[in-house]
Amino acid sequence: MRAVSEQRAFGGVQGVYAHPSDACGCEMTFGLYLPPQARDGKVPLLWFLSGLTCTHENAMVKAGAQAHAAEHGIALVFPDTSPRGAGVPDDPAFDLGQGAGFYVNATQDPWAEHFAMWDYIAEELPALLFHRFPLETELQGITGHSMGGHGALTIAMAFPERFAAVSAFAPIANPVRSAWGQKQLRAYLGPDTARWAPHDATLMMHDTGFPGPVLVDQGGADPYLELLMPEALAAAMAARRQPGAFRIQAGYDHSYFFVASFIADHLAFHAEAMAD
Amino acid sequence: MRAVSEQRAFGGVQGVYAHPSDACGCEMTFGLYLPPQARDGKVPLLWFLSGLTCTHENAMVKAGAQAHAAEHGIALVFPDTSPRGAGVPDDPAFDLGQGAGFYVNATQDPWAEHFAMWDYIAEELPALLFHRFPLETELQGITGHSMGGHGALTIAMAFPERFAAVSAFAPIANPVRSAWGQKQLRAYLGPDTARWAPHDATLMMHDTGFPGPVLVDQGGADPYLELLMPEALAAAMAARRQPGAFRIQAGYDHSYFFVASFIADHLAFHAEAMAD
Repeated sequence: MRAVSEQRAFGGVQGVYAHPSDACGCEMTFGLYLPPQARDGKVPLLWFLSGLTCTHENAMVKAGAQAHAAEHGIALVFPDTSPRGAGVPDDPAFDLGQGAGFYVNATQDPWAEHFAMWDYIAEELPALLFHRFPLETELQGITGHSMGGHGALTIAMAFPERFAAVSAFAPIANPVRSAWGQKQLRAYLGPDTARWAPHDATLMMHDTGFPGPVLVDQGGADPYLELLMPEALAAAMAARRQPGAFRIQAGYDHSYFFVASFIADHLAFHAEAMAD
Repeated sequence: MRAVSEQRAFGGVQGVYAHPSDACGCEMTFGLYLPPQARDGKVPLLWFLSGLTCTHENAMVKAGAQAHAAEHGIALVFPDTSPRGAGVPDDPAFDLGQGAGFYVNATQDPWAEHFAMWDYIAEELPALLFHRFPLETELQGITGHSMGGHGALTIAMAFPERFAAVSAFAPIANPVRSAWGQKQLRAYLGPDTARWAPHDATLMMHDTGFPGPVLVDQGGADPYLELLMPEALAAAMAARRQPGAFRIQAGYDHSYFFVASFIADHLAFHAEAMAD
């Protein structure tokens, strides 16, 4: 692992690191914000999974999360959204291939060799982070935006003991029923829809829910509402009596201005869940 | 004038607008954040002038200023840093021509026809803003980063009655003595250094100072310290007994992580000065 950059921010350090990834078979880059409290010992960790087209950098520079992470003494990790590089397959569309890993382990060609974002986020990157940085394994939360909201919800429900809480900004909520999902799950996992179900937050909410609290924010003026299908997840949360909140934020769109406007609430939500 | 985009942010609206500019002889683009309080009447206005290579967009998406502007009920304007477009001269270097207007009215060819950022910021854009938006002419502040800190300080001292306060992040503080300044002032204004002096914050601080408070933040680990020459401005502020503060922030560099880390202080500083 090598440090690409380390910059002081809000009394802590915003680092960018690159490392060879076994899961993805290429070099992967991530951002890690360590709050000032990390100088004195281990700190909790909040995962931020990003959306389509994003690298590790978008949320790191646009979400405004570090100010609140420093306040609460929580580290933030900003992983990339897919394997990348000259040897990694890609697709001309923005929503498939590089920048669009969808947080699954691809089984279909040409994706199977490199596109293992589920293993990368759930196994390989945690092992690296907890080995190399002062992070408290027992105090983790996870959040994400759009495709990253999908990733956060599905990974949290698959590892219910790992995270104190899960939240999401405008998640792709019901991908097995949406054009944002059917295309990618078919490409990465093949035509058998039984293999898609463990990657659908609404279906997982119906089946198991999450033992901790769940917070979802969705902009009411989001231009992608028909692709995100928030009403399916909201209905599933209500049917399960899932602790937490599903909020429509009137007038907000799908951008980082929306994320930044509510990131303080999400940091406070995770901090409270970690303190319980 | 046309609206390029308008997005909800922190309860207000982050707009981007484009308009034909007489001063610059081309279309100019700016960002304007109106806080929620602007729905009920006129609000104060804080100018944010950006640095080399920036457009209207960098500070708008990276500085994290809107959260605090909403809290204080202050609008933010993010102008571009130069004229732009196919008909506008440019230079291969990043620090001359497009993206590097230096907040002066060029008198030398090939720059004189378009590069009038002083008039644009001090005359044309204010007239447009106060005509079209609910902004309080009598409650203005100005800040900026790097080249934009230079612009904020020099424009504030040239129009001492206009601004309640001025602040800057890592300003180019003494351009007549620095490679960041001599090159551009010579190119834009010609070899007569007497014409450069009204565009040097340190010289202006020596000559007149500013009637309101001045806040300057400078990262102690800024890689451009020798080009910025903060010690010259700090000495001039101290010699004049200028009300305000010059702060070295240990460990911080020249990036927007530095700006974002202290933007809350600057908004609070301007809000307090406007309230006096």
